[in-house]
Amino acid sequence: MIVDSALYRDGVRVRVDCHKEDLTAVRDQATGEGDFVWVGLHQPAQDELDQVAKVFSLHPLAVEDAVKAHQRPKLERYDDALFLTLKTLWYVDDNDAVETGEINMFVGRNYVVSVRHGSGAELHSARLDLEERTAVLGHGPSAVVYAICDRVVDEYESVLDSLQEDVDEVESSVFSPDRTQDSQRIYVLKRELSEARRAVAPLREPMKRFAAGSVPLVSQEAAPFFRDVADHVIRVAENIESLDSLLSTAFDAHMARISLQQNEDMRKISAWAAIAAVGTLIAGNYGQNFDHMPELHWRYGYYMALGLMLGASFFLYRQFKKSGWL
Amino acid sequence: MIVDSALYRDGVRVRVDCHKEDLTAVRDQATGEGDFVWVGLHQPAQDELDQVAKVFSLHPLAVEDAVKAHQRPKLERYDDALFLTLKTLWYVDDNDAVETGEINMFVGRNYVVSVRHGSGAELHSARLDLEERTAVLGHGPSAVVYAICDRVVDEYESVLDSLQEDVDEVESSVFSPDRTQDSQRIYVLKRELSEARRAVAPLREPMKRFAAGSVPLVSQEAAPFFRDVADHVIRVAENIESLDSLLSTAFDAHMARISLQQNEDMRKISAWAAIAAVGTLIAGNYGQNFDHMPELHWRYGYYMALGLMLGASFFLYRQFKKSGWL
Amino acid sequence: MIVDSALYRDGVRVRVDCHKEDLTAVRDQATGEGDFVWVGLHQPAQDELDQVAKVFSLHPLAVEDAVKAHQRPKLERYDDALFLTLKTLWYVDDNDAVETGEINMFVGRNYVVSVRHGSGAELHSARLDLEERTAVLGHGPSAVVYAICDRVVDEYESVLDSLQEDVDEVESSVFSPDRTQDSQRIYVLKRELSEARRAVAPLREPMKRFAAGSVPLVSQEAAPFFRDVADHVIRVAENIESLDSLLSTAFDAHMARISLQQNEDMRKISAWAAIAAVGTLIAGNYGQNFDHMPELHWRYGYYMALGLMLGASFFLYRQFKKSGWL
Amino acid sequence: MIVDSALYRDGVRVRVDCHKEDLTAVRDQATGEGDFVWVGLHQPAQDELDQVAKVFSLHPLAVEDAVKAHQRPKLERYDDALFLTLKTLWYVDDNDAVETGEINMFVGRNYVVSVRHGSGAELHSARLDLEERTAVLGHGPSAVVYAICDRVVDEYESVLDSLQEDVDEVESSVFSPDRTQDSQRIYVLKRELSEARRAVAPLREPMKRFAAGSVPLVSQEAAPFFRDVADHVIRVAENIESLDSLLSTAFDAHMARISLQQNEDMRKISAWAAIAAVGTLIAGNYGQNFDHMPELHWRYGYYMALGLMLGASFFLYRQFKKSGWL
Amino acid sequence: MIVDSALYRDGVRVRVDCHKEDLTAVRDQATGEGDFVWVGLHQPAQDELDQVAKVFSLHPLAVEDAVKAHQRPKLERYDDALFLTLKTLWYVDDNDAVETGEINMFVGRNYVVSVRHGSGAELHSARLDLEERTAVLGHGPSAVVYAICDRVVDEYESVLDSLQEDVDEVESSVFSPDRTQDSQRIYVLKRELSEARRAVAPLREPMKRFAAGSVPLVSQEAAPFFRDVADHVIRVAENIESLDSLLSTAFDAHMARISLQQNEDMRKISAWAAIAAVGTLIAGNYGQNFDHMPELHWRYGYYMALGLMLGASFFLYRQFKKSGWL
Repeated sequence: MIVDSALYRDGVRVRVDCHKEDLTAVRDQATGEGDFVWVGLHQPAQDELDQVAKVFSLHPLAVEDAVKAHQRPKLERYDDALFLTLKTLWYVDDNDAVETGEINMFVGRNYVVSVRHGSGAELHSARLDLEERTAVLGHGPSAVVYAICDRVVDEYESVLDSLQEDVDEVESSVFSPDRTQDSQRIYVLKRELSEARRAVAPLREPMKRFAAGSVPLVSQEAAPFFRDVADHVIRVAENIESLDSLLSTAFDAHMARISLQQNEDMRKISAWAAIAAVGTLIAGNYGQNFDHMPELHWRYGYYMALGLMLGASFFLYRQFKKSGWL
Repeated sequence: MIVDSALYRDGVRVRVDCHKEDLTAVRDQATGEGDFVWVGLHQPAQDELDQVAKVFSLHPLAVEDAVKAHQRPKLERYDDALFLTLKTLWYVDDNDAVETGEINMFVGRNYVVSVRHGSGAELHSARLDLEERTAVLGHGPSAVVYAICDRVVDEYESVLDSLQEDVDEVESSVFSPDRTQDSQRIYVLKRELSEARRAVAPLREPMKRFAAGSVPLVSQEAAPFFRDVADHVIRVAENIESLDSLLSTAFDAHMARISLQQNEDMRKISAWAAIAAVGTLIAGNYGQNFDHMPELHWRYGYYMALGLMLGASFFLYRQFKKSGWL
Repeated sequence: MIVDSALYRDGVRVRVDCHKEDLTAVRDQATGEGDFVWVGLHQPAQDELDQVAKVFSLHPLAVEDAVKAHQRPKLERYDDALFLTLKTLWYVDDNDAVETGEINMFVGRNYVVSVRHGSGAELHSARLDLEERTAVLGHGPSAVVYAICDRVVDEYESVLDSLQEDVDEVESSVFSPDRTQDSQRIYVLKRELSEARRAVAPLREPMKRFAAGSVPLVSQEAAPFFRDVADHVIRVAENIESLDSLLSTAFDAHMARISLQQNEDMRKISAWAAIAAVGTLIAGNYGQNFDHMPELHWRYGYYMALGLMLGASFFLYRQFKKSGWL
Repeated sequence: MIVDSALYRDGVRVRVDCHKEDLTAVRDQATGEGDFVWVGLHQPAQDELDQVAKVFSLHPLAVEDAVKAHQRPKLERYDDALFLTLKTLWYVDDNDAVETGEINMFVGRNYVVSVRHGSGAELHSARLDLEERTAVLGHGPSAVVYAICDRVVDEYESVLDSLQEDVDEVESSVFSPDRTQDSQRIYVLKRELSEARRAVAPLREPMKRFAAGSVPLVSQEAAPFFRDVADHVIRVAENIESLDSLLSTAFDAHMARISLQQNEDMRKISAWAAIAAVGTLIAGNYGQNFDHMPELHWRYGYYMALGLMLGASFFLYRQFKKSGWL
Repeated sequence: MIVDSALYRDGVRVRVDCHKEDLTAVRDQATGEGDFVWVGLHQPAQDELDQVAKVFSLHPLAVEDAVKAHQRPKLERYDDALFLTLKTLWYVDDNDAVETGEINMFVGRNYVVSVRHGSGAELHSARLDLEERTAVLGHGPSAVVYAICDRVVDEYESVLDSLQEDVDEVESSVFSPDRTQDSQRIYVLKRELSEARRAVAPLREPMKRFAAGSVPLVSQEAAPFFRDVADHVIRVAENIESLDSLLSTAFDAHMARISLQQNEDMRKISAWAAIAAVGTLIAGNYGQNFDHMPELHWRYGYYMALGLMLGASFFLYRQFKKSGWL
C-alpha cells in the first residue's frame, strides 16, 4: 500500500496536482537542486513494489530483499543509490514479548522510498513531524533517513525500558521469600533479548559510517545527527548485554535458592520425623510383653508414658528451634 | 562420475558433437571471448579426477583436496585458477541429524569444474535453472560459482529452519508440566549446531571477498549477487549462535526444573510419611501394656482411637494442602 | 545553577567586575592569548543552559545531551569545540550501592563549560585546588579537562576499593563455617560492578586519545598527564573484571557449600533415624504376642531389652561418629 | 645423538666421503647453488649441539632454546637464519593421554639442522620419504621444513582422531542407561585437549606466514604447500575447540543425569517406604489393647488383617507403577 | 634506600672515588660514549627519590608512580627517557599465596635508576651476575633492562611451577575416593592466578615492543634477548589461562562428585532403612491382639518370627548388594 508520496522543495512539501499513486508524475517534478520525493509504502504487494522500482530504477536484488522482510539490518550501496534495512522492535505487554518488523529504505540523490513491514515504528507520524522542521528537511533525503533511524532507535530504547522492568520483576521474584518458579520467565526474557540483539547489533556499523560522514548520498552535515543515533544504538546494545548477563546471574541465584529451600525443607521434615520417632519408640517400649515391667503396674504409669512422650517431643522441638532446623 | 559437461557461449549451452566425457574435445571449442566449459563431477574416482585435472591443468594440491572431501570451507588462489571448497548440509528427519557433504570448485578463465561429495545440494538442477537464465549465465564462470554458492547457502537456511523447529520442540518440552529428559536431545542439537557452524563460519570470509569484488576471475559485476549470498551466510551464522545460546539457557532451565521437581516430590513424600507416622504413633500409644489405661476399657475406646487416627490424618492432610506441600 | 564562572589569565584567576552570572561580560574579557573562561554549572535548568549555550555558541545536539544526563561516556568533536561526557560514581554505604552521576564538558579554544548532574565528583573544590597550581592552570582549558578527569577517576578508584571490601566480606562469608545466604549479596555486587563497568569502560578510548595528544584543543603538553589518567582508567577497568570473575567463582563455591551441607545434614539425620529405628525394632520384637517367648518370662528380661536398645544405639552412635556421619 | 647428516644437490643425496658426524667436511662441500646440508639430531647433549652450532654459526639464544625443549611453538628470524619450534603430539593408548615432544629447526640458506626431543614424529622416515621425491627436495631447505611440518601436523590429526573416539565413548557412556562416573574421564580429556591446544594454536601464525610466502629463506614456490599445512593446522585447532565445547555439554548432561537418577531413586525408595508404612500402620492398629475391639474376636480377623496389609500394599504398588514412581 | 650506585664503562664497573650516595659525582663522570650509571634503590623514601630525580632530571609524574608502587606494568616514554614498571611475583609456601611487588625503572641514554618495592626479584644479585658478563653489560642501559626483565620473568615461571603443583594437588584431591572439600582451595588458587594474570598480561606489550627493536634508548642489538623474554611472558600468560580453565573443570568435577556421593549415601541409607522396616513390620504383625492367630501358639513361633526377620533382612541385604545400593 502506498501510504503517502510527496515532493519536497527546500524542506517544504509542494502540492502536486496528481494522485499520490502517480509516482512518475511526482518524480518528474523533482527537477530542482533542493527537490526530492519521499514515497512511503507499507507491506506492499510484489507488483506494487515492482511499479515503484521501475519509476525510481531500484536495483532488483534490493527490491527482492525489500519484499521478503527477513533481512539482517544492513547498509548496501548500489551504483547511484543506497539500500538500508532496519529491524523495528515493539513490546507486547500481554505476553512480555518483543516483536520485530522491518523498514527498508531506497535512497537516491533526489528520492527516498521507504518500505515498512509489521506494525512497529509508524512512519507517517514521523513524516508529519519532519514536515514541521523545514530546516532539517531541507537537507534532503539524508534528513528522511535520519528521521526514520531516530524513530526506530527511540523505539528500541522504549523496548529496552520495558525489558528492564521485566528484569527488575524477575529480580524481586527471585529474592522474594516465596517459592517462585522463575526459570521460564528468565528463559523467555533471554530469548527476547537475543531477538533484540539481532536487530540492534548489526545496526552499529551503518550508523557509525553515517556518523563518520563517509557514505555517499548522505550529507556530511547530517553527521552529528547520525552520531547521536549511533550513540543511542551503542547504548541500547550495551544495555542488552548487561541485562542478559544480569539475567544469567539472577538464574544462578534462583538455582541457589532452590537448593537452599530444598535443604531447609529437608531439615524441617527431618526434625518433625524425629519428634514422631521418639514418641513411637517410647510407646513401643511400653508395648513390650515382659512379665516383669514395673512401670506397667504403677498407678500413673500410663500418664508417665504420655508425659515422657510429650516431654521428649517438646525438648526436641525446642532444640530444633534453637539450632535453626525448625 | 562425470554428471554433465557442457560448453556455454554467451550464456547459451552449445551442442557439442562429442561424448560428454570427451572433455578435451569440449574444452578445445571454448575459444571465443564469452565461451566457457562447466564440468560437473559427483564423487569421482581418483583416476577420473586425474584425467579432468590433466585436461584443465588443475593444481595437484587442489586435486588432492578435492578427492579427500574432508576440507574446511576455503578459497584458494592458484596461479591462474581459483579453488573453492564449500560444505553442504542437509537435515535427516529420522534422527534429527545434520549431515555434511562437500563441493569443490576449480574456476579458471573459461572453465568451471565442480566436484560434489555426499548427497546434499544437488547441482544438476542448479545447472538446469541457470541455463534458463541466459543473462546471468552470460557472466561466465562467476555465474556458476554464484549459482552453486546460492544453492548451498539456501540449503543452510532450510537446515537452520529444521533445527529451529527442534529447538522449539525442546523449549516446549522443557517447560511442559511433564517430567521430561531433555538433556540428551539438547546435547545432540548442540552437536549438530557445532557441525553446522564448522561448515558455515569459514565461508563468511570467501563470500565477503567475492562481495567486495576483489577476487580475480570472479567478475566485479557479480559482486552484488555475492553480497546477497554473504549476507545470508552471516545471517545463518548468527542464527546458529543464537540457537546455541538458547539451548544453553534451555538446559539451565531444565536443570532448574529437575531441582524443583525433586523438591516438590520430597515435600509430597514427607507429607504422606507424616500422615502415616501420626497414625502409627496413636496405635503405638494404645498398644502399651499399662495396667491402668482408662481409655482401653471405654466402651468405644477403639472407635475413639480410629477416629483420632483419621482425624489427625485428615487435619494434617488439610494443613499440607493449604501450605502447598501436597 | 551556575556554581561559579571565572576568567583565568596565564593560570591566574582574574577579578572581573561583574556578577558571576553575566557570562557575556566575562567572556568578552577573555581576549588575550593565555585567557580562558571556566563556567561551572550544577544540574542547570533547560533555559539556564540555553543561555550559556548562546554565549559560547555551543552545538545544540551537545546541549541536548548535557541536559538529559543519560549518556554513555564519550568524546565528540564539533567544529571548533569538544564535548566530553563522563559518568561519576560514588558508593553509598547504607545499601552497598554504587550510584552514578554525570559530568559534561564543553571545551573551546578559550572556554570550558562544565555541567554536573548528581552528587558525585564535587567540582568546586577541584577548581580551588587547580587555582593554587598556577603552572598547571596555565595550560588553559586542557588543564581543567585534566583536573576534572583526574578527580572523577580518583573517585572510581575509591568506589572500587569499597567494592573490593564488599567482595572480601562475601568471600569470608562464603567460607565461614556458618550457613550463609550469599547469593543475593553476590547478585547485588555483580549488578553494581556492571554499572561501574558501563561508566568506566567507554572512557578508555577518549583518555587514550588525550594521552596520544591527538585531540585538537587539548594541549600536547598535557599528554603525559592524561596518560596517567588513562592508566588509572585501565587499572580500574581491569579490577572490575577481576572482581566480577572472583564473584562468579565465589558463587560457585557457595553452591558447592550448599550441596555439601545438604549432604552432611542428610547423613546426620539418617544416622539419628537409624538409632531410633533400631530401638523401635527391638521394642517391636518384644511386643509380639507369641505364647512361647522365653525372654518375656526372665526376671530381668525387660532390663535386658532396655539394655539392648541403649547398647545398640550407643554402638551405632560410635560407629557413625567414627565414619564421620555424625 | 646425530641421527643422520647428508648433503643434497638438486634434490639428490650426494655420497660424501666422510663420517656422518664430521659436519664441517659435509658442510664445506655444499658450495653449489642447489646444494644444502640436512643434519638430524635426536635429544643431543649440550656439547653435541654446541659443536653443530659452531659449524653452522647458529645463534646462541636459539641453541639454548633447542636444548631445553620447553618452548612454545614459534618462528624466529635471526640475521641469516630461521629458528622454528614445533611441538609434537602422540597418543598413548594405555592411559588415553596425549604426550608432547618438540622439534627445533635451524634453517639457513644452505642447511637445515633439525633437533628432535621425545618420541613423536619420527624424522628419519620423513627424510627417506623426501629423498624419494627429488622434485620436492630440489626446492632446498624449504622442502625439509615443509616435510617436517607436514609430518608433525599429520600426527596432530591422528591424535585428534583418537581424542574424537574418546569423546564418542564418553558420549555413549553419559547417555547409557547405566550409572556412570564420567566426570573424571571428561576432566582428563579436557586436560589433554588443553595440552594439544597449547601445541597447535601458536603454530597457526608461522604456517600462515609461510603460506603467504613472506618468510625469507623459505621459497615462495613452497607457499601452496604450506597453505595446505596451515589449513590442516586451522582444522585441527577448530576440532580441538569443538571437542572441548562438546565435552562441556556432555558434562552438563552428565550432571543432569545424576540429578534425574537421584530423583528417580528417591521416588522409588519413597514408594517402597510407603508400602511398608501402610502395613506397619495396620499391624499397629490391631496391636492396640482396647477391651472392645470386635475384629480381634472374629474367627478370621487375623487373616483379614493380613489380607488388608497385602491388599493395601498391592494397591499402592499398582498406583505407584501407574504414576511412574516405581 | 640506595642499595648500590655504580659507573660502568664499556661493560666494566669503574671505581669512583666518592660515596655511593653522592650521585651527582658519579653521574658527572659518565661522560664517555660507553659510559652509564646504574643506581639501585629499594623502597626509597619520598625525599630520597626526589633527590635522585633531581640528579637525573626524572619526570615528576614517573617519580610519583615509582613511589606509590600500585601501578600496572607499563612502558612509558618521556622526552629523553623511558619509564618501565614491572610487577614482581613470589610464592609463599605457608599459605599457598602469590604475593606481588614492583620494580620501576628510569632509563636514559647513560643511566638506569631501578626502584624496587617488596621482597621479590632481588636485584643486587642480578647486578653481580651482570657485572661478570662484560660483553652483555657493554650494551649499556639496555643490558640492565634486559637483565632485570629476565630475572623478573624467571620468577614468574617458578611461581607458575608452584601453582601448577597446587593444581595437581587439587586434581588428586578431587578425584580421590575420600570426601574432600576442595572448593575453597580452588577459589584461592583462582584468586592467585587472577593476581598473577594482572602482573603478567600487561607486560606482553612492552616486551613485544622491545623485541621488535622499536623502542628508543633500547638497543636494537638487544632485540633477540627481549624476544626471548617476550616469549617467556607469553608462555607464562598461556599457562595462567590453562591452569585457570583446568581449575574450572576441576571445580565442576568436584560438584559432580558431591552429587554422586549424595546419591550413593541416599541409596545406602534407604537400603538400611528398608532392612529395618521389614523387621519392624514382621514384629508389628505378631504384636496384633487377634484371638485367633495360630502362629502365636506354635511351639517355635517366636523363633520362626525371629528367623523371618533375619531371613528377610538378609535377603534384602543381598539384593541391595547385588544392585549396587549397598
